Amino acid sequence: MRLKRTYKCGELTSKNVNEVVILNGWVERIRDLGGIKFGLLRDRYGKVQFVIDPDNKEVYDLANKIGNEFVIAIKGIVRKRPEDAINKNMKTGEIEVLVEDLEILSESETPPIYVNKEEEISENLRLKYRYLDLRKERMQRNLLMRHKALQIIRQYFSENDFVEVETPYLTKSTPEGARDFLVPSRLKPGTFYALPQSPQLFKQLLMVSGFDRYFQIARCFRDEDFRADRQPEFSQIDFEMSFVEMDDILSFAEGLLGKLFKDLLNYDLELPLRRYTYDEVMDKYGSDKPDTRYGLEIQDFTEFFKETKAEFIKKAIENGESVRGVVLENKGDKFSRKRIDEYTEFAKSVGANGLIWVKNENGEVKSSIKKLAENELKNIFEKGIINNNDIAFILVGKRLEINKMLGHIRNKLIKEEMDKKDGFDILWVVEFPMFAWDEEENRLVAEHHPFTMPKLDEFNKYADSDPLKIRAQCYDLVINGYEMASGSIRVHRKDLQNKIFELIGLGEEEINEKFGFLIEAFKYGPPPHGGAALGFDRLIAVMVGEESIKEVIAFPKTASGSDPMTEAPSAVSERQLKELKIKLDL
Amino acid sequence: MRLKRTYKCGELTSKNVNEVVILNGWVERIRDLGGIKFGLLRDRYGKVQFVIDPDNKEVYDLANKIGNEFVIAIKGIVRKRPEDAINKNMKTGEIEVLVEDLEILSESETPPIYVNKEEEISENLRLKYRYLDLRKERMQRNLLMRHKALQIIRQYFSENDFVEVETPYLTKSTPEGARDFLVPSRLKPGTFYALPQSPQLFKQLLMVSGFDRYFQIARCFRDEDFRADRQPEFSQIDFEMSFVEMDDILSFAEGLLGKLFKDLLNYDLELPLRRYTYDEVMDKYGSDKPDTRYGLEIQDFTEFFKETKAEFIKKAIENGESVRGVVLENKGDKFSRKRIDEYTEFAKSVGANGLIWVKNENGEVKSSIKKLAENELKNIFEKGIINNNDIAFILVGKRLEINKMLGHIRNKLIKEEMDKKDGFDILWVVEFPMFAWDEEENRLVAEHHPFTMPKLDEFNKYADSDPLKIRAQCYDLVINGYEMASGSIRVHRKDLQNKIFELIGLGEEEINEKFGFLIEAFKYGPPPHGGAALGFDRLIAVMVGEESIKEVIAFPKTASGSDPMTEAPSAVSERQLKELKIKLDL
Repeated sequence: MRLKRTYKCGELTSKNVNEVVILNGWVERIRDLGGIKFGLLRDRYGKVQFVIDPDNKEVYDLANKIGNEFVIAIKGIVRKRPEDAINKNMKTGEIEVLVEDLEILSESETPPIYVNKEEEISENLRLKYRYLDLRKERMQRNLLMRHKALQIIRQYFSENDFVEVETPYLTKSTPEGARDFLVPSRLKPGTFYALPQSPQLFKQLLMVSGFDRYFQIARCFRDEDFRADRQPEFSQIDFEMSFVEMDDILSFAEGLLGKLFKDLLNYDLELPLRRYTYDEVMDKYGSDKPDTRYGLEIQDFTEFFKETKAEFIKKAIENGESVRGVVLENKGDKFSRKRIDEYTEFAKSVGANGLIWVKNENGEVKSSIKKLAENELKNIFEKGIINNNDIAFILVGKRLEINKMLGHIRNKLIKEEMDKKDGFDILWVVEFPMFAWDEEENRLVAEHHPFTMPKLDEFNKYADSDPLKIRAQCYDLVINGYEMASGSIRVHRKDLQNKIFELIGLGEEEINEKFGFLIEAFKYGPPPHGGAALGFDRLIAVMVGEESIKEVIAFPKTASGSDPMTEAPSAVSERQLKELKIKLDL
Repeated sequence: MRLKRTYKCGELTSKNVNEVVILNGWVERIRDLGGIKFGLLRDRYGKVQFVIDPDNKEVYDLANKIGNEFVIAIKGIVRKRPEDAINKNMKTGEIEVLVEDLEILSESETPPIYVNKEEEISENLRLKYRYLDLRKERMQRNLLMRHKALQIIRQYFSENDFVEVETPYLTKSTPEGARDFLVPSRLKPGTFYALPQSPQLFKQLLMVSGFDRYFQIARCFRDEDFRADRQPEFSQIDFEMSFVEMDDILSFAEGLLGKLFKDLLNYDLELPLRRYTYDEVMDKYGSDKPDTRYGLEIQDFTEFFKETKAEFIKKAIENGESVRGVVLENKGDKFSRKRIDEYTEFAKSVGANGLIWVKNENGEVKSSIKKLAENELKNIFEKGIINNNDIAFILVGKRLEINKMLGHIRNKLIKEEMDKKDGFDILWVVEFPMFAWDEEENRLVAEHHPFTMPKLDEFNKYADSDPLKIRAQCYDLVINGYEMASGSIRVHRKDLQNKIFELIGLGEEEINEKFGFLIEAFKYGPPPHGGAALGFDRLIAVMVGEESIKEVIAFPKTASGSDPMTEAPSAVSERQLKELKIKLDL
């Protein structure tokens, strides 16, 4: 390179005035003002203004060929801008570079998407030209934040005696959980590797190996339908510790989060984080990943309806059911009959039989059950629970069931009616149920995974009589309504593990097929251990304030799992298929 | 846990005497000496001796159940060992823990492989019980070194303004280079992702995006036949820089190596590293990845044979061929006729017509060409080139061709006859040929890859007349005879790129098929850039002194690409294949 940079574009200030500098970068824009050319040169470190005087004819003529996104090298002297041209919003805003020499390093056709301004364009176009999209200030900032987070995380783990171990990406298919991506083996035709859904089994084996503390920022793969904001491959902060209890893991994770939020955003987390039990959040928010910033807690109205004339409610209460609802404050006037009908449909779509609505209009009851229960509702008004211009949505049914439905309604109300809150709502949810009942298979299933340690006192008490009462030693981290991390203390005792397998109806053959090598490993002195995995993409997205994880992944896939840039996935040659001894079966 | 550790096993010293401590770990061994039990408790941090007195009956009885590799918790008081029991070779060797309380955390069956001593066992067994194999001190040390290296490397890159970017593992198949692993797409049946052989194209795109400096410790995948010491997946230190020339990249890499060797091994590298041109190393060592510690340089004997009566040699020389060989000092007596025959066969297997051997036995010539050229050989003896008890192996032929063959013979001699050297032989090889001639396809091919920047002066001079004379701006790092890293300055000018494609006979369609998106990206202002990739597994193996990279990978595959522990790759269900719309074709 004839003109190799002596400075980065973003680092020049008035301290450099009168220095001769060489800069390399992209032309953000260039224009001719009264015969003098003004341009903005950009690199990752910032932007700086350059000026080309027509007196410098050779350079001026060459500059005529320059367009946006050309890569150029300029050599020139740094000078102070005239007072009225100083740009206080720009780091280099006090100076400019008077160009003496210029080299075009490479040219650019007119870019198909704007680099220097935000525009509404299709995701497809953005991803097809991702290398241009990534030139945008926002994307550069996002990926730099991600980079910094990676370093902070690893340093934190390292300083705390964790060993980073890279576990295999070509591993065994485990038909538990989500769908595996498969990789045909050429050397052993007819067999397949699977890409790991997580390093779960390997990290437990590393504990068996005595590594004591393990971490990895691991790529994980799930062949799911990519509705919502999911990616076929994603990054996970994965860690595991030996000789610990739940509190050790939570406080360790909190230390990491505290450091990340402080170092990246200068945001002080209040530690220790709030902890809710699963029962609490379900009862209050109808969700195991609530955003608590928006209030709108589920309230119990059962007491008010004990003596109601509304027969269906009365009966329900006599059968042990509840009357519960959420009250949206001071927005009753925003709910027309049509909109209320829409909410009723929504409630039905999440499993409700119907939806009771109640408005307080200057003390007057408006409600779908006004005729049946006006007095009861008035009573609620008088207690100050539903006030003027409030609207309440109420369900009648089994407490656990209607809680979940109200949780959905609550989320819909938040999305549609509440101003988006700044900041972060971070909490733990603990004491999830160990088991759930699978109606379809008519058997118990493990809610988390079958290596999750139950609460031992509850296990001893209820394993044989009422296993659904047993709660697990597991925990979720919730940030702004996203399940951000999940983990558990693992079972390390063989007798306990066998009993759990028995409860969920796993036969010996199936156990061996699925977890054989872990079971085998546990014969040789597994330590007590536990860990967690944290969704790294989502964490960064939430931290930088992006709605979609695609904004923090350099080269993401579309919702159909494809990459418009490389055109992956794509057809392959017959020869390749022959070598793998597979055929298409379309 | 009833007894949760207050210390790690390895950290107790005489400073802790009289402290009551709790330790958790594995029983390395336990035995009864005169009614008192002595045991060794192990964790990742070290080992410590514990003592169980029969007076403590409950604990003593429980201890009777304990065997090797049980996981236990002990509580006890630290006390000084008697003078004669002090073990100076052990960090905790001055103290022992008198056990007051004991808990068995988990039991162990007799392990199928030894943890506490090295033994000769099959690789299959080691890998099947990898979690036990990893308990060994050597494996723990290797993986801890690897961990430390990971942190040092990332810190070095970070401090030097490199951005870590995670590139996709599900990407597009590029039928260039080695064989891809394929991943069938379920959402787009009939198409496949490929696992990346390296992030090459993505890192170049990141330069186009303006990230300026990128790094990643990336997993790479190659479906090769795993002869030699190869793995289907391996880790690569990958980096790329914009606005740089070769020297910037080399000196940056040297900074990294210097730091790694210093911080990990306290070994001072002599920087800058030696640099050889490709021509030099080929001429001297017959290899582009020589280990120069062993001398045994290739010598030219052509001058001595100019007037020889050995017709075949004389003719060859007249045809511009050379007489060259290697001289092994003072080991002539180790080469019987039988062994020499073996070397002759070996020479033939690497392409030679035959092999001339020459021994100096007290000044007397013993040689396969004694009858034809005794005087010439005597002359060589007299010049002190082949001395008493030396043996020389000599080839006649085209200089470049016989250099390569002599390189193989040299390596064989080193392996069989030279004592293994300590330390590290580190050097750069630069100025590789840009092109090679593919006899089979009867066309030029790119030696490195077609995005490698040629030496521009040579390119301008020879592109049309004699492109084989053009050398490339690329470089290999060689450590102890291993090609450890490889990189190049990349082409960023369209006209140059097109000319290179033309020279290697790539048509537009093929170019678009293979590199379409990179070519497209290069329309929009690519910066001058270059980079390198460093084989991380091999680097660590060499640094810790292991022959095989399997010793520094937590869960490697066997030579047939399988994992005896998980039994990957394995059969999958019909349902899985149906979903992917593929069939086996065995």
